[in-house]
Amino acid sequence: MIQKYRNLLIFFFLAQLLSVPTLAGARPKVVLTHDGVQKIRAALGAVPLFDATVARVKEEVDAEIEAGIDTPIPKDYSGGYTHERHKRNFFIMQKAGALYHILEDEKYASYIRDTLFQYAAMYRDLPLHPKKRSYARGKLFWQCLNDANWLVYVSQAYDAIYNYLSAEERQTLEDNLFRPFADHISIANPKFFNRIHNHSTWGNAAVGMIGLVMGDDELVERALYGLPSKNLDFNAKDDDGGFFFVEGQKAGFLANLAESFSLDGYYAEGPYYQRYAIYPFLIFAQGLHNARPDLAIFGQQDGVLLKAVDALLNLSDANGDFFPLNDAQKGMSYHTQSLITAVNIAFRFGGGDARLLGIAEEQGEVLLDDAGIAVALAIGDGATRPFEKKSVNYSDGGADGKQGGVAVLRSGEEDIELVFKYTSQGLSHGHYDKLSFSLYEKGEEVLQDYGMVRYVNIGQKGGGNYLPENTTWAKQTIAHNTLVQNATSHFEGKYEIGSLHHSELYFFDDTNPDVQIVSATESNAYPGTVMQRTMALIKSENFEKPFVLDLLKVKSDSENQYDLPFHYLGQVMQTNFDYERPSSLSALGGENGYQHLYLEGIGRSASETSRLSWMSERRFYTLTSVAGESDELLFTRTGANDPDFNLRPDPAFVIRRKGAGDTAFVSVIEPHGDYNPVTELATNSDSNISRLRIVHNDENYTAVSIEDLGGQVTVLVLSNSDANRSKNHELDIDGKAYSWTGPYHYFVR
Amino acid sequence: MIQKYRNLLIFFFLAQLLSVPTLAGARPKVVLTHDGVQKIRAALGAVPLFDATVARVKEEVDAEIEAGIDTPIPKDYSGGYTHERHKRNFFIMQKAGALYHILEDEKYASYIRDTLFQYAAMYRDLPLHPKKRSYARGKLFWQCLNDANWLVYVSQAYDAIYNYLSAEERQTLEDNLFRPFADHISIANPKFFNRIHNHSTWGNAAVGMIGLVMGDDELVERALYGLPSKNLDFNAKDDDGGFFFVEGQKAGFLANLAESFSLDGYYAEGPYYQRYAIYPFLIFAQGLHNARPDLAIFGQQDGVLLKAVDALLNLSDANGDFFPLNDAQKGMSYHTQSLITAVNIAFRFGGGDARLLGIAEEQGEVLLDDAGIAVALAIGDGATRPFEKKSVNYSDGGADGKQGGVAVLRSGEEDIELVFKYTSQGLSHGHYDKLSFSLYEKGEEVLQDYGMVRYVNIGQKGGGNYLPENTTWAKQTIAHNTLVQNATSHFEGKYEIGSLHHSELYFFDDTNPDVQIVSATESNAYPGTVMQRTMALIKSENFEKPFVLDLLKVKSDSENQYDLPFHYLGQVMQTNFDYERPSSLSALGGENGYQHLYLEGIGRSASETSRLSWMSERRFYTLTSVAGESDELLFTRTGANDPDFNLRPDPAFVIRRKGAGDTAFVSVIEPHGDYNPVTELATNSDSNISRLRIVHNDENYTAVSIEDLGGQVTVLVLSNSDANRSKNHELDIDGKAYSWTGPYHYFVR
Repeated sequence: MIQKYRNLLIFFFLAQLLSVPTLAGARPKVVLTHDGVQKIRAALGAVPLFDATVARVKEEVDAEIEAGIDTPIPKDYSGGYTHERHKRNFFIMQKAGALYHILEDEKYASYIRDTLFQYAAMYRDLPLHPKKRSYARGKLFWQCLNDANWLVYVSQAYDAIYNYLSAEERQTLEDNLFRPFADHISIANPKFFNRIHNHSTWGNAAVGMIGLVMGDDELVERALYGLPSKNLDFNAKDDDGGFFFVEGQKAGFLANLAESFSLDGYYAEGPYYQRYAIYPFLIFAQGLHNARPDLAIFGQQDGVLLKAVDALLNLSDANGDFFPLNDAQKGMSYHTQSLITAVNIAFRFGGGDARLLGIAEEQGEVLLDDAGIAVALAIGDGATRPFEKKSVNYSDGGADGKQGGVAVLRSGEEDIELVFKYTSQGLSHGHYDKLSFSLYEKGEEVLQDYGMVRYVNIGQKGGGNYLPENTTWAKQTIAHNTLVQNATSHFEGKYEIGSLHHSELYFFDDTNPDVQIVSATESNAYPGTVMQRTMALIKSENFEKPFVLDLLKVKSDSENQYDLPFHYLGQVMQTNFDYERPSSLSALGGENGYQHLYLEGIGRSASETSRLSWMSERRFYTLTSVAGESDELLFTRTGANDPDFNLRPDPAFVIRRKGAGDTAFVSVIEPHGDYNPVTELATNSDSNISRLRIVHNDENYTAVSIEDLGGQVTVLVLSNSDANRSKNHELDIDGKAYSWTGPYHYFVR
Repeated sequence: MIQKYRNLLIFFFLAQLLSVPTLAGARPKVVLTHDGVQKIRAALGAVPLFDATVARVKEEVDAEIEAGIDTPIPKDYSGGYTHERHKRNFFIMQKAGALYHILEDEKYASYIRDTLFQYAAMYRDLPLHPKKRSYARGKLFWQCLNDANWLVYVSQAYDAIYNYLSAEERQTLEDNLFRPFADHISIANPKFFNRIHNHSTWGNAAVGMIGLVMGDDELVERALYGLPSKNLDFNAKDDDGGFFFVEGQKAGFLANLAESFSLDGYYAEGPYYQRYAIYPFLIFAQGLHNARPDLAIFGQQDGVLLKAVDALLNLSDANGDFFPLNDAQKGMSYHTQSLITAVNIAFRFGGGDARLLGIAEEQGEVLLDDAGIAVALAIGDGATRPFEKKSVNYSDGGADGKQGGVAVLRSGEEDIELVFKYTSQGLSHGHYDKLSFSLYEKGEEVLQDYGMVRYVNIGQKGGGNYLPENTTWAKQTIAHNTLVQNATSHFEGKYEIGSLHHSELYFFDDTNPDVQIVSATESNAYPGTVMQRTMALIKSENFEKPFVLDLLKVKSDSENQYDLPFHYLGQVMQTNFDYERPSSLSALGGENGYQHLYLEGIGRSASETSRLSWMSERRFYTLTSVAGESDELLFTRTGANDPDFNLRPDPAFVIRRKGAGDTAFVSVIEPHGDYNPVTELATNSDSNISRLRIVHNDENYTAVSIEDLGGQVTVLVLSNSDANRSKNHELDIDGKAYSWTGPYHYFVR
């Protein structure tokens, strides 16, 4: 009997011990969930992609645990030891949290606990980070942004070991680390926390995530709706030149969600920053989906978070590299961790789009959570479909209206891709390049957007931060493939002006597989001047590859000098015009980016058709332009006034037309042939165009004819004043009448 | 009985018909043989590599047969239609010949016959090719060289259908095509046929091959021993600036074999031309092996033809691209057709070296002949071994003595390769770059040899021929990573002088896996000046990757200006010295290649150790040099005085030391770390060297110390006057005595 009671007592005692987790609720619960863990454990060993990720992550985390915990006193900028160490710590803790549950090995939990206690022991006494460059200095890192990164990841690690810790341990961590940490990046730094900006999204998500894990509704509310907007300085600008606050603007995660993306899912700063911002948006959304189903977060703004993932994937070239619109470092691709997150979450919470599995397979890695196991299981079931990229057109401008956009014309299997930018300014990372474009073949740049002048995380180059030439060169109009009037940048290169305006779509039509076409206008870049640019990607059986027809109409109430640059890459092969190369090289101008261009040659065309051929990546290209005797044809190269060799020495070809008011620039960019240095065979190395001509040009219509070497003439006619698809048009060209329906007509003459 | 006789008659009749081939001998017999055909037919369907090649070649040839025969009137330079058409014809005929026997399908034989008869119908009436640039104009092509190419291949096709043709048909082809063709490229063009030059090798092989096929001993003798050398102009020079004839020199295939290769198999013009010359050498050798076993051709010159294949493979980088020594177009690799031939023949007739199968597998293609089936069968049997490339040293200089050489230092799995050139002039394609080097990591150039200024077969660029800048830039000393005295090239850039001299090996030692080292001297490039350059590829556990120590000692009886260029690629990251960039760019000099260099910056080092870091191909490199305040540190870029944009705009860093007589240039080239634009992580982006110092330097010894960031100091001591491996040395450095055996000593201090 005594024995019986004793057993009963022990039972109750044990039950109470065991019930602690139950009292605190099932954990983890925010991103990785208790249910997810069960699913993963059941599937483990039978889902190759998931198993491979577990093995890789285990190896990585085990090596770090082996190496020992280090939480150094913060000291460095990015690239420096303390920065990279703290960064690595948060990545590893997040992964260790997942491994703890998946592998049921306490060493991962104790590693997280020990690391967190080291942080807790130091955090309260930490002064601001000693590096002073940021408008919002963090404590572990030089900017609050990186502190927010830390908290977004570490919240997940804390969630993972929440039930592993005693109530007392949790109290210590929350009092000494998490709450003051969350307060520092929000209350103490409203300029960081209360903006419509990717920085704030990270801040909001960080505070919200830790709020969800701690069960602190006040933090979650702060994350969702921001700080009260009192005493904000509406004239203050951040390090990149953008305003902190705009009068009347809301703040917090939901406001950022509503403002950052267009209805189509395009992010105003461009895909490079979109892939950075997408992580906090999606990871916190996943947490809210689990903890706050009332918000129906993935349905907000017509499901914009899911559209954003789709847009991001479509804004990458054939290799998966993001198009470098605005400030962007080239080479960033959908193989980055945040896109693995994005693709996994979009699959799991976006209706299971099987094309996403195609990307996930390419990525070769999944998340170690509910979303990741869903992806891996679906792939294992053979559900994968390829993510075929087609021509797309995305509006820019947040939820409250369309503010221009960006279009990608794609040729399909030939892998020619043209990116046409007619967006709004793109916030503080925007470049002054209305109606600019860039061109790719098989994922290689043919006509480039320079990108940004920054070597991210490479300490030797200005600490890895934006370099002065980013402002003086990369953001300037002349650094892009678009029109420059009187050697000044669009909107005078001023953010205050540029951010008030955007270009307007005239039409986009991807319905004809042989003519993918987009047209847009810009009326504010140069007051008194209206530009309309139409770009068509055309397939013709007389041409080996699709070619681009570029028709830029300019209408101005003044006479101007127009420069139209083509930023080609590679080696000049041939021109059909004479040019002189100066014996010494000087800068083409003194400001607005021109100070960075050496003038390497000046030519003039003897005929109305000028032609420049070059070779790049062992393929040939020809730019054929309607440019006559009065046009100067300039060869330039970047590198002037670049005291620290921050710029790449890239060439450009500039068509300069002086004293012109209304005018039109018409060009064909023709990819053709290739060269094989092993067989030493050059195939199709000559252009197929014999003559390019403007055959009609007035207020209502512009028509261009392309004559090929075989004698066939094709014509593109554009209606300049009516883009209605069902409107009928008639036009007489060279004495012959043509009629058609819609804004353009392309035909064999 | 009558029936019986009738059968007998029919039997005899048939036997006579069938015996025609037997009377003419078994065919084919020269390259592909009757026995080989039997072997191939027996194996067909069970040798994947061979079967795949047959399928691919069949598809190619069938498409050509389908397209119809075209033998246009010759008109164009290379790259133009008629040139490329006739070139394609001979390739296709040779392949069709093999298919005829392998697949036993007469359509291939009739295709060859019909094509040959079209040629026979036109050949006698053909004038010289209308393009006049060559010193030896062909009839089908602008130069006899290409006509010889044609005959080497077509001989094989003719051999293939020899028995398919009637005696009358053969007579017609031989009288109207083959004999006059052979005479044109030999008797009519002694300057082409009678040289020691790859052109002549092609000519010799062409005449010899057709001689073997026709059974014409006179032609074979002419091929083997050349034309009688009467009335030769010993002052005449060819288009590339080389002499046609040297007094007393023999001619013909055997003389070329004896003179072209060193005893180690190195070909004086360098690997780019070696891969071109190797085809006629080996294909004719294969024919001679079959038809003239008395010559024991593969044993000639101690088996030099087989050594030549081995040397050629070893003179390629980690990607299989040949090192561009002398005139060479980059990107040419052992995937080229002539190397498939070389590897197959070397395997079949060179004792079956299983490492060659490793290359053959990479090539993914075999010859459709006796050699090809041998390779394919051996691979099928699993005999393949990898072709591991190690450090090598090849002497230059033909059979009659060593004339310098070329060494490759290799680090093994880290894939760092250093090519050190101390050869003879390299005939007419030689560059003036004694003791120059180039450096590779994973097959990518770190410090480049510029290569040649020619776009082979790209018509837009000067007809695909050598461009003027090849002479004014690419051949000049400053275009290479070696010392320039008083801004003049070695040997005054004169072939007449350069071809009299060669550098001398001091020692080469690859026995220590941690220190691969080579040292050579040059005494004639600048009369009165002796240069000794020692290059070591060193592995140290304190360094992430192997590094290069470069020790260039100069002894001169006059005071000079020395320029030591380092032709790096990519983006400057950081220097430890200040430099100024001029506001406008001018040429660094007026001649000897300096007219093509823009001066982009001038710096001076404040300390004795100057440091330049750059990034290339997403990897970091640092050049650390002992260069003090009196040295000018120049940044240059190619492109000045280049009217047609023929040059690439590549950077270089030049250490300029003025008013110096005896001196030493000491540098370390240190590959370290990398950058990943997807993770945006820079690893190990800083140099690990804190100080580089010359700690001893006199007539007998030079010692250099390298101090790393961890404080460890290593020293390399070089004995300057005795390279004996067993010699004992003693030296006092900074008050401490060291002793060692052999020409160098590397130790931790």
